[in-house]
Amino acid sequence: MNDLTMTVNADELIMSALREDISSEDVTTNAIIKSYTRGKVELICKQDGILAGLEVFRRVFTLLDPKTEFDMKKTDGDQIKKGELIGTVTGDIRVLLSGERTALNYLQRMSGIATYTHATVSLLEGTKTKLLDTRKTTPNMRIFEKYAVKVGGGGNHRYNLSDGILLKDNHIGAAGSITEAVNMARDYAPFVRKIEVETESLDMVREAVEAGADIIMLDNMSYDDMKKAISIIDGRAKTECSGNVTRESIKALTDLGVDYISSGALTHSAPILDLSLKNLHEI
Amino acid sequence: MNDLTMTVNADELIMSALREDISSEDVTTNAIIKSYTRGKVELICKQDGILAGLEVFRRVFTLLDPKTEFDMKKTDGDQIKKGELIGTVTGDIRVLLSGERTALNYLQRMSGIATYTHATVSLLEGTKTKLLDTRKTTPNMRIFEKYAVKVGGGGNHRYNLSDGILLKDNHIGAAGSITEAVNMARDYAPFVRKIEVETESLDMVREAVEAGADIIMLDNMSYDDMKKAISIIDGRAKTECSGNVTRESIKALTDLGVDYISSGALTHSAPILDLSLKNLHEI
Amino acid sequence: MNDLTMTVNADELIMSALREDISSEDVTTNAIIKSYTRGKVELICKQDGILAGLEVFRRVFTLLDPKTEFDMKKTDGDQIKKGELIGTVTGDIRVLLSGERTALNYLQRMSGIATYTHATVSLLEGTKTKLLDTRKTTPNMRIFEKYAVKVGGGGNHRYNLSDGILLKDNHIGAAGSITEAVNMARDYAPFVRKIEVETESLDMVREAVEAGADIIMLDNMSYDDMKKAISIIDGRAKTECSGNVTRESIKALTDLGVDYISSGALTHSAPILDLSLKNLHEI
Amino acid sequence: MNDLTMTVNADELIMSALREDISSEDVTTNAIIKSYTRGKVELICKQDGILAGLEVFRRVFTLLDPKTEFDMKKTDGDQIKKGELIGTVTGDIRVLLSGERTALNYLQRMSGIATYTHATVSLLEGTKTKLLDTRKTTPNMRIFEKYAVKVGGGGNHRYNLSDGILLKDNHIGAAGSITEAVNMARDYAPFVRKIEVETESLDMVREAVEAGADIIMLDNMSYDDMKKAISIIDGRAKTECSGNVTRESIKALTDLGVDYISSGALTHSAPILDLSLKNLHEI
Amino acid sequence: MNDLTMTVNADELIMSALREDISSEDVTTNAIIKSYTRGKVELICKQDGILAGLEVFRRVFTLLDPKTEFDMKKTDGDQIKKGELIGTVTGDIRVLLSGERTALNYLQRMSGIATYTHATVSLLEGTKTKLLDTRKTTPNMRIFEKYAVKVGGGGNHRYNLSDGILLKDNHIGAAGSITEAVNMARDYAPFVRKIEVETESLDMVREAVEAGADIIMLDNMSYDDMKKAISIIDGRAKTECSGNVTRESIKALTDLGVDYISSGALTHSAPILDLSLKNLHEI
Amino acid sequence: MNDLTMTVNADELIMSALREDISSEDVTTNAIIKSYTRGKVELICKQDGILAGLEVFRRVFTLLDPKTEFDMKKTDGDQIKKGELIGTVTGDIRVLLSGERTALNYLQRMSGIATYTHATVSLLEGTKTKLLDTRKTTPNMRIFEKYAVKVGGGGNHRYNLSDGILLKDNHIGAAGSITEAVNMARDYAPFVRKIEVETESLDMVREAVEAGADIIMLDNMSYDDMKKAISIIDGRAKTECSGNVTRESIKALTDLGVDYISSGALTHSAPILDLSLKNLHEI
Repeated sequence: MNDLTMTVNADELIMSALREDISSEDVTTNAIIKSYTRGKVELICKQDGILAGLEVFRRVFTLLDPKTEFDMKKTDGDQIKKGELIGTVTGDIRVLLSGERTALNYLQRMSGIATYTHATVSLLEGTKTKLLDTRKTTPNMRIFEKYAVKVGGGGNHRYNLSDGILLKDNHIGAAGSITEAVNMARDYAPFVRKIEVETESLDMVREAVEAGADIIMLDNMSYDDMKKAISIIDGRAKTECSGNVTRESIKALTDLGVDYISSGALTHSAPILDLSLKNLHEI
Repeated sequence: MNDLTMTVNADELIMSALREDISSEDVTTNAIIKSYTRGKVELICKQDGILAGLEVFRRVFTLLDPKTEFDMKKTDGDQIKKGELIGTVTGDIRVLLSGERTALNYLQRMSGIATYTHATVSLLEGTKTKLLDTRKTTPNMRIFEKYAVKVGGGGNHRYNLSDGILLKDNHIGAAGSITEAVNMARDYAPFVRKIEVETESLDMVREAVEAGADIIMLDNMSYDDMKKAISIIDGRAKTECSGNVTRESIKALTDLGVDYISSGALTHSAPILDLSLKNLHEI
Repeated sequence: MNDLTMTVNADELIMSALREDISSEDVTTNAIIKSYTRGKVELICKQDGILAGLEVFRRVFTLLDPKTEFDMKKTDGDQIKKGELIGTVTGDIRVLLSGERTALNYLQRMSGIATYTHATVSLLEGTKTKLLDTRKTTPNMRIFEKYAVKVGGGGNHRYNLSDGILLKDNHIGAAGSITEAVNMARDYAPFVRKIEVETESLDMVREAVEAGADIIMLDNMSYDDMKKAISIIDGRAKTECSGNVTRESIKALTDLGVDYISSGALTHSAPILDLSLKNLHEI
Repeated sequence: MNDLTMTVNADELIMSALREDISSEDVTTNAIIKSYTRGKVELICKQDGILAGLEVFRRVFTLLDPKTEFDMKKTDGDQIKKGELIGTVTGDIRVLLSGERTALNYLQRMSGIATYTHATVSLLEGTKTKLLDTRKTTPNMRIFEKYAVKVGGGGNHRYNLSDGILLKDNHIGAAGSITEAVNMARDYAPFVRKIEVETESLDMVREAVEAGADIIMLDNMSYDDMKKAISIIDGRAKTECSGNVTRESIKALTDLGVDYISSGALTHSAPILDLSLKNLHEI
Repeated sequence: MNDLTMTVNADELIMSALREDISSEDVTTNAIIKSYTRGKVELICKQDGILAGLEVFRRVFTLLDPKTEFDMKKTDGDQIKKGELIGTVTGDIRVLLSGERTALNYLQRMSGIATYTHATVSLLEGTKTKLLDTRKTTPNMRIFEKYAVKVGGGGNHRYNLSDGILLKDNHIGAAGSITEAVNMARDYAPFVRKIEVETESLDMVREAVEAGADIIMLDNMSYDDMKKAISIIDGRAKTECSGNVTRESIKALTDLGVDYISSGALTHSAPILDLSLKNLHEI
Repeated sequence: MNDLTMTVNADELIMSALREDISSEDVTTNAIIKSYTRGKVELICKQDGILAGLEVFRRVFTLLDPKTEFDMKKTDGDQIKKGELIGTVTGDIRVLLSGERTALNYLQRMSGIATYTHATVSLLEGTKTKLLDTRKTTPNMRIFEKYAVKVGGGGNHRYNLSDGILLKDNHIGAAGSITEAVNMARDYAPFVRKIEVETESLDMVREAVEAGADIIMLDNMSYDDMKKAISIIDGRAKTECSGNVTRESIKALTDLGVDYISSGALTHSAPILDLSLKNLHEI
């Protein structure tokens, strides 16, 4: 996540998170440490995994004090091992203490998602299938969580309701048919949008291909139906398989030959990766 | 979570989540459904668990359209079973479609936390020990996640850095001693604050009791040391046991006789509870 | 523009515009009209054109007072004639007076864009070419201006930098080649994105087609080169012609056979359509 | 527009415009340019006119990255010629690419207004009449557009409804008479306010003068009536002529001897001035 | 303060004040009162004075719950006596309890200012001199405090730095002379602005009159000098006397014949008026 | 107030105050001073008292221009004398002029509160009783006013409704009894909260002690009843005396032996301390 993205779209959310944790002041720290004291603290890995969110972690501290310094040994995407030193943070001890929890809350969650994604992606190795996230992200965390999925080796599905067309059964019902729905979407949406149709049967798949859908989602279909659907589509549209995909269930899909598999679990059910700030000391 | 809390502190976050998902418009829905169409959709449970966040779920839709109607069969704290109908939502189909994901993202996550908390609390049944959350919440989700912990039968530790005193090793080091730190905190903080001291050895426990700490946290101590610490404290302060407590590890602590056990896992590692909006139809 | 889009993304901008015009209070109106007085005012067309923005016009008044009533004879997209009554607004006279300018500032500008777009689109009648807007919109007016283009019969290009890929010479230079740039974009961007490449020569066109670009922009090319480019592309990608297109210059492009023509003038140089609130009277 | 005005009142609007264009990230640029690369780009004039908004243009880039550097050959108010180099911008190429459109959208619009104003003002040369803007500005652009009018040699009418008194027919009707309306306004408004009365007949002009109006607006009157009105007023109040004044229609008013002419066209119908960022290259 | 002013400019401040008092939830009330309970409470006067801010008081509760009802016996500007019932508030008891303090904080402060202003104004009775406030208001309270001054019978000086010209010694020094400063201000400022000059000697007064100042402030002058200044000005400009004016010191100025006296004490040193919500009971 | 507290919670309020005073621009200053001019101004004490708010004063200027420099001879909590130089501010003269009023409005008000608090606290010297503030603060000023009370030697009661439990008669009534209310609060609130009960009779005092209240407020009791109450409580809870306590009335309470006296007057009725910026000059 580069500085520009951070400035335009992440900083407001991070400040809001800091205000959530410091609604008036850090009473404990302010009671004890009355003036600037320079200190250093170590960021330690407590569990094997993939690191993600280092820039967000830094930003928490630099929003509190732009003079905070960082010496990082690792970077996003790196595999880290339990016990490893990831880097150090140096600055006003009050900043280190008051920002610690918020910084770790972001970093642990993003690294947890990257770790879970990475493990899931590795199950697809050797296939042409790419793993995607969904919109099942934590509210006000999407920009961080979708980034973490990419760090873990996954790809991003549409960012939100405004930047992608996905015609579901209710849209199709309201339009009258898949063909009509695709035409209405093509007529209405910005011309840079791909059009995706969610299908639940082979008949729907056939109609979607004919209607010129760019992407066809095979939603909660049986393995056999998906197999047939992909053969019907025959490269005329991209194919996506969706529906309760987890690290466990994905194994059954590896030889399906689908272009994309999307999984909400990447963002809604990955546990955090345990990380810690240790050995804070005056310098 | 009552209406007043929602108005003052949750609505802004929910609107921000809606804007995250609809940065200009719901292109798909607006392409197809050009005018008000009244519809109804069912909220279905897809996994056994404890329901939490129904008011937040409702708010997502009423922020989009205050005329949206709800007929709920369940309420927060209810045990729900896979396949059960939780209730229905009726209103403008465009509102039902555009709000669906954000509403479920909140409800699934909050119910997931309540479910995990409830399962963990049940392991403490018959003891005097109360299960608490921590500040290891998802950024910008604290108000929702701490509420979900209570729905699941847990209690809340301090809300944030501003409303509770917790003297950690670095505060103690900076103050010179536990005694000095407690005195400084008592002198500085609003007089309604309890003072908690984090201890890592029996000597620290002794000093904390003498200094008049209201709560003593036994941080990452061995079972035996915790046992001794509780006996040293002997009711002169509340006791809290902390450090990587999960549903698995808590069993070893049930006969310890500690007043509180706090667990970050409640909020940072609970998977979601699967819920779904189904059978949307015009009415 | 439906109510949901308005609530989520337009209301904040409209309130900001109202605060721009009323930084403390409407001194004149508050000096004279001390209490609620019910009044009615007529919205009159003073220049032939296409109406756009009626919902935004209404919203200005309902944000000031939700009880304001409207009786509109026309709707967005209607051709209106000088002297015609578009409708009436009824409510607290103070609301009618204080909201008048902001409501008209939106409506006149949006109708001006729709009128200009409509006139330009009509020059393309009978061809397969569709007219598009660009990102050359007025800051903080994009959602209104892009909507007005659609009301006028145009289509929307990408909404912003986040929802569309457009590889320009600098991106291509940094990537090393068009092929490399297209690959990097396909690898990085959400998979629902189409990839557009800006080309300035026939060689670039050839490379873009080979690289699998979804859309090829012919930027500031001569008529003959565009003709050749379209023949080279031969349906393998959508084609877009761009570069200082105005109502005057577009005529030369009508028989080109290009899929899309994009024109910044639609939003950056359309004059307003003159509209007026008249005959305010107590009722 | 100085730094202080920018900080207090323009930055928020500019950031909002940047978020309008970058709702999550600049996907194209981030796909291709993965790390800091220093570059330089030239700001080129593509149409003769008056430059206005250079500080706003700079601010777009420095809000994205405060280390962006500028070397400007021109300043606001300068006449610039097609083909001229206005200056250069140097910094992170990602910042130059992502900020380009928003920076130009401001600069082109402000320069367009300054250019149109300047051309109109020049028609009044040699007279005592000063050209003024109105409140017919683009929503959320007032601070920029009113500044551009001044750069073009025009003057500003009241900034908004809160900082000037303008008694229109409805205020007068509600008060009972011009005299009564002027008295009520004088009684209610901050004492630093001038009081302006909008008149449509010579009788109204006479009453306004007697009532002690500071400024009398002659609204949509015939040339002869305006002539008579000015003679009736005879210096006892400032005079303002208003009503559909454009660059074309203003010529008929030059020998009227009115103090001020106000024209909404300056801000609502000036086309942009074409400017461009060219020759971006690594350095 | 009417509804429109409230909506556009006061609501945000009031919500911010409510969030200051309820940063997560009203813990006490939510602990005890678990569901809607209808109640009524009386607003009682505990000290003689002038009531001001009733609409703000109401708004605090209606922002929390729009269904809250009010039955008010008094209105802004009324003289109220110790022990009098001002009115009642009826609604959700949780709303009455949670909003009480913020509502009273506004009402007591505004009534305190109105009371102090009224007492001071009464000392000027029978003279032509009008009492004015200053910009010495409490941060983020200006719209409320300036309104309260008017309710108390005072007038408003300029609202802020943007809507009035006041040339002080530093401006005059920077311009070179009073004459030059007045000319620069007339040239730069919106033409509806009056120009005020702050003077400290009779020479400055003379130059200000000649320069065409609309208002001349006599700043911290002796009584005799002010007398002479007013005679020099002789009606050619409005006169304002300023400098540490309080209820005590103003008596010496009553026969001076100055047009305006401004006093910062009205807003910066008025004590509150004691008011109370009593007898809350279920109904 | 340290930098971190300022960044997270005060800056937004200070910027809002600056926008209140500069809704478009400082017209006077911008009319006269067209470019950066370096100047220096002196902060002078005009009345004996206690200084509070120097960091807030600085922040007003550094938010306008981070390069503003300060040379302060005094610090918060210092006693200052009429005529004393507190320090100097050096920077862009436009910043010094435009920020002056807002900076002083904060500093004068905060110093006024510190001064009043200090005088009141000194009346309690030699007793064990500590003076506390209340929630009767000015809306949107709490963080500044509670800090000023501490600078003046007072202590802080709860910060707001979210961080302290105070059971009043209505809560007790709704719960059924004090005992029940205390139990409900203990069950519901975060476990770090102390529980305070407001009592109006000796019976209530007895019940509160038995229920295990941490703090018992003696609200508007007679001196004799308070004496008895303290004897009944006998150290089993902290005691707080409350009800119209001012600098005058507090003298009667000095030998009561109560732990805390809370006084709304500290924040709602302290007059400002007169301070001034003088001798601005170019350097």
